[in-house]
Amino acid sequence: MKHFRSIAEAGPDAVRRLLDLADHMAEVNRRPNPKVPALRGKTVCNVFFEDSTRTRLSFETAAKRLSADTMNFSVSSSSLNKGESLRDTIETIAAMGVDAFVIRHRSTGTPWQIAQWTNASIVNAGDGWHAHPTQALLDCATIRTAFGRSDGFDGLRVAIVGDVKHSRVARSDIEAFSMLGADVTLVAPKTLLPPFTDRMPVAVTTDLDAVLSEVDVLYLLRMQTERMTEALVPDLREYTARFGLTPARVPRLADHALVMHPGPMNRGVEIAVDPAEIPGSVITQQVTNGIAVRMAVLFDLLGSGSLPEATS
Amino acid sequence: MKHFRSIAEAGPDAVRRLLDLADHMAEVNRRPNPKVPALRGKTVCNVFFEDSTRTRLSFETAAKRLSADTMNFSVSSSSLNKGESLRDTIETIAAMGVDAFVIRHRSTGTPWQIAQWTNASIVNAGDGWHAHPTQALLDCATIRTAFGRSDGFDGLRVAIVGDVKHSRVARSDIEAFSMLGADVTLVAPKTLLPPFTDRMPVAVTTDLDAVLSEVDVLYLLRMQTERMTEALVPDLREYTARFGLTPARVPRLADHALVMHPGPMNRGVEIAVDPAEIPGSVITQQVTNGIAVRMAVLFDLLGSGSLPEATS
Amino acid sequence: MKHFRSIAEAGPDAVRRLLDLADHMAEVNRRPNPKVPALRGKTVCNVFFEDSTRTRLSFETAAKRLSADTMNFSVSSSSLNKGESLRDTIETIAAMGVDAFVIRHRSTGTPWQIAQWTNASIVNAGDGWHAHPTQALLDCATIRTAFGRSDGFDGLRVAIVGDVKHSRVARSDIEAFSMLGADVTLVAPKTLLPPFTDRMPVAVTTDLDAVLSEVDVLYLLRMQTERMTEALVPDLREYTARFGLTPARVPRLADHALVMHPGPMNRGVEIAVDPAEIPGSVITQQVTNGIAVRMAVLFDLLGSGSLPEATS
Repeated sequence: MKHFRSIAEAGPDAVRRLLDLADHMAEVNRRPNPKVPALRGKTVCNVFFEDSTRTRLSFETAAKRLSADTMNFSVSSSSLNKGESLRDTIETIAAMGVDAFVIRHRSTGTPWQIAQWTNASIVNAGDGWHAHPTQALLDCATIRTAFGRSDGFDGLRVAIVGDVKHSRVARSDIEAFSMLGADVTLVAPKTLLPPFTDRMPVAVTTDLDAVLSEVDVLYLLRMQTERMTEALVPDLREYTARFGLTPARVPRLADHALVMHPGPMNRGVEIAVDPAEIPGSVITQQVTNGIAVRMAVLFDLLGSGSLPEATS
Repeated sequence: MKHFRSIAEAGPDAVRRLLDLADHMAEVNRRPNPKVPALRGKTVCNVFFEDSTRTRLSFETAAKRLSADTMNFSVSSSSLNKGESLRDTIETIAAMGVDAFVIRHRSTGTPWQIAQWTNASIVNAGDGWHAHPTQALLDCATIRTAFGRSDGFDGLRVAIVGDVKHSRVARSDIEAFSMLGADVTLVAPKTLLPPFTDRMPVAVTTDLDAVLSEVDVLYLLRMQTERMTEALVPDLREYTARFGLTPARVPRLADHALVMHPGPMNRGVEIAVDPAEIPGSVITQQVTNGIAVRMAVLFDLLGSGSLPEATS
Repeated sequence: MKHFRSIAEAGPDAVRRLLDLADHMAEVNRRPNPKVPALRGKTVCNVFFEDSTRTRLSFETAAKRLSADTMNFSVSSSSLNKGESLRDTIETIAAMGVDAFVIRHRSTGTPWQIAQWTNASIVNAGDGWHAHPTQALLDCATIRTAFGRSDGFDGLRVAIVGDVKHSRVARSDIEAFSMLGADVTLVAPKTLLPPFTDRMPVAVTTDLDAVLSEVDVLYLLRMQTERMTEALVPDLREYTARFGLTPARVPRLADHALVMHPGPMNRGVEIAVDPAEIPGSVITQQVTNGIAVRMAVLFDLLGSGSLPEATS
């Protein structure tokens, strides 16, 4: 695999291979010394055109665990002109000797555009509303581990709740969950659904309570307060009442159901209970699996030969 | 020791052990290659809610000397909501696999609060006006080395001069110096003294000149110009005249007396002479000892087994 | 060599030695694992008083390739007072154990001033309009490699085009190119020429087209839009028409001629063609050689013994 830019582009074989590799990386991460020399001498450059300390730290930690060197190029969009200037920036950094770029950008498709300008591998760390494939991969890894479902997700019922329209996480999760066999239901007010949901491998409802007790996985999306000022939701309190995980709803979840969230949480909005008190919450495990999954992606793109063993 | 959050909490045995360990680390730092593999595979995360490039660089350098990986999480307080959001942030970073958090925060007690949310070790790098225990430790290491007093500070006379009220450095130094046996005198205008000095192991005076020739250590605190706008001091010139180390006062110091300052200095205010021209100035040594002391703390919290030897 | 602050100060022997060393480093950089342990245990601190992500990343990458530890101290000039405060900052960082400072500052001479305050080596990464010697070195390395001229540049004709007056790159290139034997011509409007060009080892013209077909190297300087508001150029379009590399001018270059630019390019101003379509463009190679040259400088200043071999 040369790039990792979307779940659909990677395809089912690569997704399964990366999930198996992430299992191995998770085992590495549980060792007293979780550092392996697998990517020694490789350079991974994080180029974040949007702030995301969490995602950047996760990629940086994954790269360091594999002994790669990391470079950080943070860009306030004002300091760069559009068009060719972005190209010059990428070509300049690439010329310093970068093996992989990890790209976060507000515009859909930027990782594909950048791949035309450099021979380095490209990892999409979120482009516009389009895709966030390492998030989808870590979500799959979390479900796999929690349910022991390394065979796939056939028959698993997943509800994705909230602002699907503006969510690259949702788009990548829909691709990945359905690729692995899960039945995905989107739960959102109509104003927060994307167009053409009829062409997606999903069911759609506006009634969380109708599906709540049936789901194996309840995936809550971050609700951004901007949506209220854009008049897409009348009121955050109203949103919580209809779509939030409230204390009244928790007991209606199945005993085995998982509660997931990509973070950062808007407590009191999409989640109005302390996740530490929900038995099925795997929100912390998602973050932990993020390291293993990103190690798997970087090793798959840049590593050679056998799986990493621990440094002595 | 699990955490290092205050001198009082650590207690005299730990303080002495850390100072002995810092002596060893100082020896490591004098080697041509001062890097040791003691914490290879450990991750230290600096979480600074207040800017402090010096302290952050000192901790980062200490961690790297021990071959730990470092993560930096800088927070403008505006980007974080209060309360549970801080908790979510810490839990998220912790879930990536952090062995120790180094915390700087404007609020007293934050390092204790954070310790409830993570299994990682906590090092207090300054919380509000409360404590800055690694500063106190490096101050003790500097005095120990300068006077050859590894047995303790019995009979040593230390004057701490300036804005004691708003100084976490002063609070931690008072604890540490008196714990080791020194006689501490606070020298400050009444408006810059903390309440309840009668319950502290200190003498108090408003007359620097009355004690100047008697002290073994003159410890100058940073005078922040904000204090003048808050009307706590009438005028910085007046402050310097009464409490500053002026050219006229230098010759009245004992020949062996040390002059110390936690940095950054407000030259012309609390110190109106060039410290390079004061024979007893150990201000640069304080910075150097900061690395050794922070290496000692990190090794004590995270290391296992014997003292670090040099890498080959 | 203790410092590397200007081409003139280094002198011809050091310049030739560094270029030979850079050849070796370029070979290291072409290896699958370009990392060598040559500076293990050394600390290089980047102190940038002006933003320059490219140059900082280049030095940081060079240091990491040699296994040095790096510290970054970025300063908005507002956070530092002038004069002694700069000194205190440098002395404080130096006291943490820094082997070399890489300094970028808007004022001419800062690297010499700082060298008086620390025993560490100083590398000038650009001071005011004065000097940027590692840029000149990488430019020489690029010409050497492209023309196979490790014997020197005797008879080579170089035109430096544009805002010479405000360019530290131009000043250092003039010194280096002429030191190696090249014939240098400055091509610029009179308002963008420095005073006293008659004392420099250069020819001067305002007519690009008169020299275009004769040059072996066309070196385009960055044209900053500020110059227009300062009324030094009437109009950027006019500037491009007279001094820019336009599509009409490209075919008039000699077949073997190199086109160079220090970056970042103002496309459409000093260069109105896509450099990827100019056969002689070595702009990307300049960036790549920047890593090798900075490795050479750091190794020359801090290394001991023989040339670096690869890590196993």
